[in-house]
Amino acid sequence: MRATLLRRSVLPPTIRQLLLPIPPSQLSSQDAEKPVTVTGFVKSIRRQKRVSFAVVSDGSNAKGMQAVFLDTPVPKDLTNGASVRLTGKLSKSPGAGQEKELIVNGVEVLGACDPETYPIQKQTLSNEFLRDNVHLRARAGSIAAMIRMRHALQRELESWFDKHDFYHVNTPILTSNDAEGAGETFKISTTTEEAPISALEENHQKEEHFFSTPAHLTVSAQLHLEAFQHAISRMWTLSPAFRAERSDTSRHLAEFWMLEAEWGDVSPSASTPGGVRGICAFVEGMLRHTVRGLLERDRTKEDLDVLSDGNSRQSERREQIHKAVYSPEPWTVMTYTEAIEHLRGSGQTFEFEPVWGKSLQSEHEKWLAEKMVGGPVFVVDYPVGLKPFYMRLNSAAEGQEGTVACFDLLVPGVGELVGGSVREEREEVLIKRMRECGLLEDTGELGAYQWYLDLRKYGGAPHVGFGMGFERLVSWVGGVENVKECVPVPRWAGRMML
Amino acid sequence: MRATLLRRSVLPPTIRQLLLPIPPSQLSSQDAEKPVTVTGFVKSIRRQKRVSFAVVSDGSNAKGMQAVFLDTPVPKDLTNGASVRLTGKLSKSPGAGQEKELIVNGVEVLGACDPETYPIQKQTLSNEFLRDNVHLRARAGSIAAMIRMRHALQRELESWFDKHDFYHVNTPILTSNDAEGAGETFKISTTTEEAPISALEENHQKEEHFFSTPAHLTVSAQLHLEAFQHAISRMWTLSPAFRAERSDTSRHLAEFWMLEAEWGDVSPSASTPGGVRGICAFVEGMLRHTVRGLLERDRTKEDLDVLSDGNSRQSERREQIHKAVYSPEPWTVMTYTEAIEHLRGSGQTFEFEPVWGKSLQSEHEKWLAEKMVGGPVFVVDYPVGLKPFYMRLNSAAEGQEGTVACFDLLVPGVGELVGGSVREEREEVLIKRMRECGLLEDTGELGAYQWYLDLRKYGGAPHVGFGMGFERLVSWVGGVENVKECVPVPRWAGRMML
Repeated sequence: MRATLLRRSVLPPTIRQLLLPIPPSQLSSQDAEKPVTVTGFVKSIRRQKRVSFAVVSDGSNAKGMQAVFLDTPVPKDLTNGASVRLTGKLSKSPGAGQEKELIVNGVEVLGACDPETYPIQKQTLSNEFLRDNVHLRARAGSIAAMIRMRHALQRELESWFDKHDFYHVNTPILTSNDAEGAGETFKISTTTEEAPISALEENHQKEEHFFSTPAHLTVSAQLHLEAFQHAISRMWTLSPAFRAERSDTSRHLAEFWMLEAEWGDVSPSASTPGGVRGICAFVEGMLRHTVRGLLERDRTKEDLDVLSDGNSRQSERREQIHKAVYSPEPWTVMTYTEAIEHLRGSGQTFEFEPVWGKSLQSEHEKWLAEKMVGGPVFVVDYPVGLKPFYMRLNSAAEGQEGTVACFDLLVPGVGELVGGSVREEREEVLIKRMRECGLLEDTGELGAYQWYLDLRKYGGAPHVGFGMGFERLVSWVGGVENVKECVPVPRWAGRMML
Repeated sequence: MRATLLRRSVLPPTIRQLLLPIPPSQLSSQDAEKPVTVTGFVKSIRRQKRVSFAVVSDGSNAKGMQAVFLDTPVPKDLTNGASVRLTGKLSKSPGAGQEKELIVNGVEVLGACDPETYPIQKQTLSNEFLRDNVHLRARAGSIAAMIRMRHALQRELESWFDKHDFYHVNTPILTSNDAEGAGETFKISTTTEEAPISALEENHQKEEHFFSTPAHLTVSAQLHLEAFQHAISRMWTLSPAFRAERSDTSRHLAEFWMLEAEWGDVSPSASTPGGVRGICAFVEGMLRHTVRGLLERDRTKEDLDVLSDGNSRQSERREQIHKAVYSPEPWTVMTYTEAIEHLRGSGQTFEFEPVWGKSLQSEHEKWLAEKMVGGPVFVVDYPVGLKPFYMRLNSAAEGQEGTVACFDLLVPGVGELVGGSVREEREEVLIKRMRECGLLEDTGELGAYQWYLDLRKYGGAPHVGFGMGFERLVSWVGGVENVKECVPVPRWAGRMML
């Protein structure tokens, strides 16, 4: 009923759709003979005497489509980077590398591209060069593959959360709170860039009035998600987050996308573990589901091949990921205390000595995930002094005094991929922790956090949650070395293109 | 294969899932007898001598679940707003209003809620009161319904774009450009809120260094989408956008979500119109698909009922929407010139006289959509002076001199819901327009827009696109009067809660 009521699609098929195998039941001899039109960019052109070949891409797949010019002459301005519209017939390809090819009988150059000055040349371009040409870099195969992979990962994540009846909620970007109570934040104002220095004071006063309170760019949606979780018990978001950190590493961006989820904690039972191990089981399930879904999408295989092209460490990494998501063995879980013991007993020389009560350094995380486990590893129950105020205090009775019910998931090649915790739902414990962290005003007033405490006051219940850097997921699954190549337009200290 | 490999879901079913009719094939007598556990908030409690009734909600559906206390005593602190865990058996309900109810045999109050001070009382609360209690407002039925509706709309939009082979791309929030060249933007800095006025100059210099260029919050993803469209020919995004406008209207927010799409223009033919009418056909298809999908979701029906509760104009509006998305008649398309003629000939007295060359005012848009058409209406080909530089100039040959190939979609109750255009792909025309709009530097240098012109230079081809305010879609479909009730945490001039 619904299908017949809907109008027919108003756009012609993409190259990817044209190359799909047609199910025999839908195949009529008429279809096979029907002329097709393809619009796209020229990725390569090989001119020969009797026949010429071009690869044309509209970005809908990794490989594009091979176009064969037999009787049709190739226009002079059909060069690498030009935009063309081709008509012709799809035909079984005698060559290796593609099932079908387009036998061209009509060609129109929609937009020429000077081959002398075109920055995206055929040879492999360095990441740095592509960052400098970020407006064109999606024409490089690896960046286009990354963009398609982000799309696919997002759909797989959605299917996981839909299955578990989570609602996707849009949390605000502008906020008056700083969830981590630590990271440097970006502050916003309404001053214009042309404002002379002399006008700054005036503008400053104007800006104070815009929202009636200072506004920052969010560093995490967690506290907001918690508010919603106290009404709709399973919530998640995939949303931009910001850190004004000046570090330029392969794992940090000033603007990044973060997946965050919160839900009501469940009582421990045989099938449903509660507490921090319950979160770990859920996160492991999510990543297995998502990465399997990705690996089993036909179109993603080609994209993963593009991403691993020319990188010798890739096949090893891909095997490792395959094992992580298909192996029947549950992923390793160890306490922070055990992790410190393993590190101290490793015989390895670290730049920073592993000491109980100090943060795990990148070198420690790498050793645990890459050398010791050779796959994903959950580290749980970190010392209270290392973690934010909202994580639930473990009790002495559980043998975990001085720790909080939290975890970091470490994966080879990336380090920390996911972090989460049981949230402190006990109002008086939370107030004590906030006081220790200096978040409450000297007078003892609850100030800006009153609303957060209200959530406990009015029917607060045990709940848990986690956050995952989306670019780090792309980095892990795609084997992409630097998160700057895991987001379409990267922003980091010193760089703001477009 | 995949299903058997995956671990079983690690979370117990939600109330919505528990209330789903079980297909007879999956129903065993064992299941019916299995005890179930429900965790949620008390929405209402009715204590009687022999039997008591509570409605418990976990936010997974609109109605929650009726819990019946027969032999089990109701604890004193099981009050409105408290968080509870109930165990019992699902049973066919003899009462009206629900198919099944929970016969309680175990009860645990997880978090009490003082009924004296709890802000979310049972009587209908004003929008203004709920905005002041935004951290708790999702516990009000109408706000929770809106959040679930946003989720459903997002899924339906995704299915439309997936069907047409668009890729979902995450465009940056921080940018150095201002797409509209008009609206006031928020500027970001790394200064801390405590910075004394005397430190402003120093901070200003520091901030200049963070990204090496001034950074704004994006007002539109369009220019960035165009860059990607020149590699992957069908792109869309649903992303936050920002306007530092001080107007406080029912249609504007300082932070809102915008759906934007760009794709390669197609040649006009019988089935696939090109140009601005092609975009209109695509947008009409998208909205019919999305709204139908929403109306046909069982769970959304209840949410729409909640949203229209107590609003007498709702049934009329719902009929109008039903007609718009199911009627076989295509939506009305008229030129701006025709719209002005209709308005001038309407006999209506307007505050602003409708004059060719001047913007359509809100009162004009309302009259066109509500009085004249009684449904959605596309107004196309506006005068060039009213629209941004990137819209394609119509030619004299088309009888549309002095206009651009653009459209606004006006809908009853909301006004402008969608706006889009053919993009100017001709480099020399674009440069001329940018010069007229004062976007190029006095020296004639292309400056910050060089990258945008590069897109034309290197294989530029005809392309089109549009943007739709997501909150306005929620407002239209849900019949919600003010966009402040169409987003979980609204931000507007003077207001910044949480």
